[in-house]
Parts: sequence; structure tokens; C-alpha cells
Amino acid sequence: MPKFAKRMDNLKASEIRELLALTADPSIISFAGGLPAAELFPIDAWIEASNKVMKNNGAAALQYGPTDGYARLREHCVTRMKKVGCKDVKPEDIQILSGSQQGLDFVPRVLIDPGDYIIVESPTYLGALNAFKAYEPKFLQVALDEDGMILEDLEEKLKNHDNVKFIYVISDFQNPSGKTWTLERRKGLIELANKYDVMILEDNPYGELRFEGEIQPSLRSLDTENRVIFMGTFSKIFSPGIRVGWFNAAPEVLEKFNMVKQGADLQTSTTTQMILSQFLDDNDLEEHIAKIIEVYGKRKNIMVDAMKKYFPEEVTFTNPEGGLFLWVSLPEGLNARDIAVKAIEKKVAFVPGGAFYPESPEENHFRLNYSCMPEDKIEEGIKRLGEVLHDAVK
Amino acid sequence: MPKFAKRMDNLKASEIRELLALTADPSIISFAGGLPAAELFPIDAWIEASNKVMKNNGAAALQYGPTDGYARLREHCVTRMKKVGCKDVKPEDIQILSGSQQGLDFVPRVLIDPGDYIIVESPTYLGALNAFKAYEPKFLQVALDEDGMILEDLEEKLKNHDNVKFIYVISDFQNPSGKTWTLERRKGLIELANKYDVMILEDNPYGELRFEGEIQPSLRSLDTENRVIFMGTFSKIFSPGIRVGWFNAAPEVLEKFNMVKQGADLQTSTTTQMILSQFLDDNDLEEHIAKIIEVYGKRKNIMVDAMKKYFPEEVTFTNPEGGLFLWVSLPEGLNARDIAVKAIEKKVAFVPGGAFYPESPEENHFRLNYSCMPEDKIEEGIKRLGEVLHDAVK
Repeated sequence: MPKFAKRMDNLKASEIRELLALTADPSIISFAGGLPAAELFPIDAWIEASNKVMKNNGAAALQYGPTDGYARLREHCVTRMKKVGCKDVKPEDIQILSGSQQGLDFVPRVLIDPGDYIIVESPTYLGALNAFKAYEPKFLQVALDEDGMILEDLEEKLKNHDNVKFIYVISDFQNPSGKTWTLERRKGLIELANKYDVMILEDNPYGELRFEGEIQPSLRSLDTENRVIFMGTFSKIFSPGIRVGWFNAAPEVLEKFNMVKQGADLQTSTTTQMILSQFLDDNDLEEHIAKIIEVYGKRKNIMVDAMKKYFPEEVTFTNPEGGLFLWVSLPEGLNARDIAVKAIEKKVAFVPGGAFYPESPEENHFRLNYSCMPEDKIEEGIKRLGEVLHDAVK
Repeated sequence: MPKFAKRMDNLKASEIRELLALTADPSIISFAGGLPAAELFPIDAWIEASNKVMKNNGAAALQYGPTDGYARLREHCVTRMKKVGCKDVKPEDIQILSGSQQGLDFVPRVLIDPGDYIIVESPTYLGALNAFKAYEPKFLQVALDEDGMILEDLEEKLKNHDNVKFIYVISDFQNPSGKTWTLERRKGLIELANKYDVMILEDNPYGELRFEGEIQPSLRSLDTENRVIFMGTFSKIFSPGIRVGWFNAAPEVLEKFNMVKQGADLQTSTTTQMILSQFLDDNDLEEHIAKIIEVYGKRKNIMVDAMKKYFPEEVTFTNPEGGLFLWVSLPEGLNARDIAVKAIEKKVAFVPGGAFYPESPEENHFRLNYSCMPEDKIEEGIKRLGEVLHDAVK
């Protein structure tokens, strides 16, 4: 066996991916993954767009294309940016990515030397933690309350650490907590980033999937010193299988990402970019998103109602206004990993919360996904989970 | 502007990518890129495969899929491995990549700590050098003669440097030189890798595109101690726009690649993997490859004949038995970058050779691509280039 690089010591297989492998068993009711509802994929419209592209422009669609992305698709990304309050973005301010997970790899590659700090929400997306760890950063965790990061805690950390390179934030319907930052907190974050001269990585996969209330302006739209690197994706509003996301950031940062992209995979698939772009030309994405929102909102309500009915009262949970996930908290001392083992015996899966902390994991939480199970299974799964929880809190 | 990571100091934009941008001008005769001939893409068969997948299995094709790749496609990769002499590969020995460029990023990520050595052919593929540089390696260059790396020179380097992690080799129709290693040299390389306990990265994008002579067994097929990491791709035998390549390597190495893949982009597009796989189920790829070989072989001959006719006799060049590139050598003292500037004035583009060396570049060479220009333009382009060269050697 070869001697592997030191950075590999930090990596381990994602617990979610391993759980997903387990939940391939169709008899399992899975709240574990983050899969969009496949029955909503616009397959017929995709076929139409695909045939149009291939008949009119097939040679280009199968050929190499530019590193920064297919020009027309970058225009469509500009439209998405407007939806989250960024009115002045131009197509040249967009770098297409092979899914926004690729951005989670690129940002630390460009910004982090071993030992530099990344500040993350506590808890935060474990796929981000795994991507970041390859660059040997240190982590600082800032707790979330109902309004976002606790800014006093954030400032304390910024004040006491010199080499903080960026703050990683999912400000809308966070994965895993389902929480959304208030406007006040967003503005406060931007001020602190300016004051302490650090970058912000805004990961925004769910922002357009709001069931109720008002869309908050993205951090990027509140950015006064070009410090926010925005990541968007078509995974949750269209399809994750095509692997298309994007960056919007300051030109000098995009220039670095472009160089990194050349080394990483040259470019995102011309084929999927051109077909997606044609789909967006010919269809009303807003209408499609409205359908997704209706279905996910309903599923979320069913899950929350079932939890109220079946969970013991000692167990609390968030009630998100959008997105795909909610976060369950057990009384301290209970370990969600133990609950997960018992739940799997009853054919119900979820992701224990410990994986969502870079260090000092809080083991008494877990994440539930409500986007990809039909309503009767949500009810049944929560009922079974309630039985496990009632046993556990006894 | 943020303070970027130290590794970014090593990166610069690929000269090829910048040249490709320039050659978007359709009046330019470009021998610069490495584009496959787009007129050979099997567009109708692709449409058929795509519609079949989408109608029968569209939800799966647009959904997340496994990190290691679509199962049926991994079987097709096993078939490709047999073509290069690897008879015992199993589907689980394959990791699907978003093009083999992604492999050029993953191998140093898994093996290289800053300051470790990578041994490369001199010259070598510049896209590999750019990908490797992000991991802050040192490079050792070993010269090529007509039979492959000069093994005495290689052993000297291995003997005198402790922390050589891998040897990067394109053994068939090398980019940029067009050279192919003999069987004897291949065996000698494996012996040296065993003796000095280093890994080999075999990059094999062109191996199946042989115009004449016998296919040499791949390094992977000669591997006695599971030291060879093999990278294959569908870019040159099918389409680069879909971005699908693969690794074959020892299980403990594949395990690391799988973890890295999760962080890098979760998985390669399910959509393109499933459509490609359907295409391979329903069509005879060997027949398609035979067509490509016929066209490229003819273009290569036309280029070589034109060079014999139009180039001054002081200028020498390789005459590859396959692949997409040949390598032109000017008398020492002449600089191919100067020639490139004059050639662009005559609307002919190529890549100056200096970019293909990690250090101590030899500036009196350049690379010509013959796969993507029609025959009359090849003749005309070489004629114009001949005029520039005659002026230069005067």
C-alpha cells in the first residue's frame, strides 16, 4: 500500500453516503438522504429540450466547451441571482460548477493554508466539512439560535483568531437544522466580515424553496465589500443528476476558481449545460419551483403534525419555512446514534446529528429529510420513530 | 482582495485554454487544441439512447447516484480495460470520474505532501502539470527517446531522491510528443517502480486510437505489485462534452479516491453516465472507434506529407502511430513562442512546447494537433507554417 498524503488522515467516508447505500433497500422508510422528489422531475420537457439541442447543435453539445461555462446558461444563472436579490450580476460574474459540492472543494483550495481557520455554523452541512478537511483547516463553531448565528459569539471568535479565512453559512433553511437567518443577523454578519477582513461563503441550495413567509435577501445581495462567494445549484430546483451549480463572486476570486476548475475537471459537461439551458429557455422554471414548494411544504407539515402526535414531549424539533430538512433534539444524555440503530430495526433511517459538527459533536440531535418520501410513508415512519423515542426517553 | 492560499502561487491559467479562446475565430486554422473531430460524434445514436433512458428510467437518470459510478457503465469500463490487456478487472475495481482530468487532480491529492517528488516524461501533458502543481510537489523530468523514458536516467533519479511518490506516464501516443513506449521499456518501468517502491500513474486517453502496428499492453496489464493507477476516458473514443472517465487501481487506493470524490463533486452526472451506458449497450463502439481511426490516420498522414513538402529540412517531427498529436523540433536557439506569434499573423495556431515542461523548458519545440481540422485546411495550414519556418531558419 502506498504512503498516502497527510491530508488523507483527515478524511473519512461520508456517513450520509454510507447510509444512502443502506437505504437502497426499498422497504426502508428513509428520512436520511437529501434527495429531491424524483416524481417531480420534468422528464418530458427534458426529453424535448435534449432532442432540440442534439438536433440543432449536437456536435457542440458533445464537444469540449469553455471552462467558465456555457454562455447562455450563465445568463440563466443571472436570472436566479435576481431571485435572491442580486440585481447587478452579469453573466461574466458566473462560474459554472459540476454541482455546488464542487464549490465546497474549490473555496478552501483557493483560500486555506493548513492551520487556517474556517468558521462554521454549529451544526453545519457535513458534506462541506468533509470537503474542507482535505485542506487541513482548523474549525471554529458558532452556535445557531432561532435567528441565525449568535453574533456576539462570532465576534468573540473573530477577535481572538488571526487567520480566519472564511465563514461558511447556509442562511436559508440550513442543512441540517432547517433554520433561516433574519435580515438583522445577515446585516450583522456582513458588518463583522468587513470589520475583521474575512470572506463569507454563502451556500444557497434551498433559498428558492420557501413554503411561507418572505424571502430574505441573500448575503451576497447585502455584500458591501465584495466579500461574499455565493454558491447556487440546479440540484434542488431542477435535478441533481445533471450536476450543475455555479459561483458568483468578485472577479479576482472568480479568476482563481477558473484556474482551479481547469485542473479539477477542465469544465462541467457541455451536454448537461446545454440541455439544461434549452429547458430553461423553453419552460417556466418558476412554475416548476411552485410545484416543488407545494409538495415539500405539504410533506413538511405532515411530518411536523405526525411528530406532534407521535413524539414524546421531551423531544423538540424545528419547523422550517422551506428547504428539505428539519432538526430533532433529544433530551441531553440521549445519543441519536443509538436511536438510529433501533430505528433501522424498525426500517426507518435518518442521519444522527453528531456528523454535522467538525468537533465536540452534540450527539443528542438528528436530521430528518421530508422531500422524497410519499405522505403515507412519512406518517408511518414518524409513528415508528415515535415508538423508538418513547422507549428511549422512558 | 483576500489573501489566497500558498498553493495558488503555483497556478497559472493553462496556455492551451487561452489559445483555445483565441482560436474561436473561425478563420484561424487551429492545430492548437486537442479537440476530437466533432463531425464524427454519433449524434443520432446518442438521441436514441437518451430517449430510451429518459422514457424508461428518467427519474433515476435525473436523481443522485452512487459515488463510485453507475453500475452498468462500470461494466462497460471493464470491457475497455480488456482492450488494453487487463483481463481480470471487475466492475468494483472501477471508479467513474468527471473526465480523466479529474483523476489528474485526485492522484496528487491522495499521494503528494508538499515537497514530495513526481517524475514526469519530458515533455509531458501540460494539463497534468497544472493539476499537480496545486499540491506543491517537486518535479523530476526524465527525457524520452523513440522508445519511451530513458530508463537509466529514470533509475538515477529514483536512486537519488527518497520521496518520489509516483511516475506519471502517457505510454501510448503521448501528449504532446506522439511517442509510444516499447514493451521492453514498459516492463523496465514496472521493474523500477517495484524496486524503488513508487506508484505509477498511467494516463491512457488515446491507447485505442492506433492507426498502424500492434497495440502494446498497458502498464496496468504488466503491473505485478498493484502499483499502477490507470486512467481511461470516453473523451477521445466517444465525446469529451459528457465528461466521463474512470480509474482502475488497487482497492485500497480506490477507497481513497472514493472519499475524495465525495468531497470533490459527490459523483459524476447520473444523466450522462446512464445515457452513455445505454449507447454502449445498443451500439458497436469498436465500429465507431474504427471510423475515428480511419479519419485521424488519414489526417495525420496528410499533415506529415505536407510537413515533408513545406517545412525546411532543419525542422524535424515525430510520426505517431496513433492519437491526436505530433511534436515538431526546431533547430536549437529558435523559440517556438516567436514562431507562434508569426503563425497567428498568418491565421495558424499551435501550442509552443515550453508549456509542456515543469521546469527548464525546451523552447524549440511545438505541438500540432491533426484530429479536428479538415484535410484541405491541414494542407493549407502546414503550407503557411512552412513559410514562417523557412523565414525563421534563414
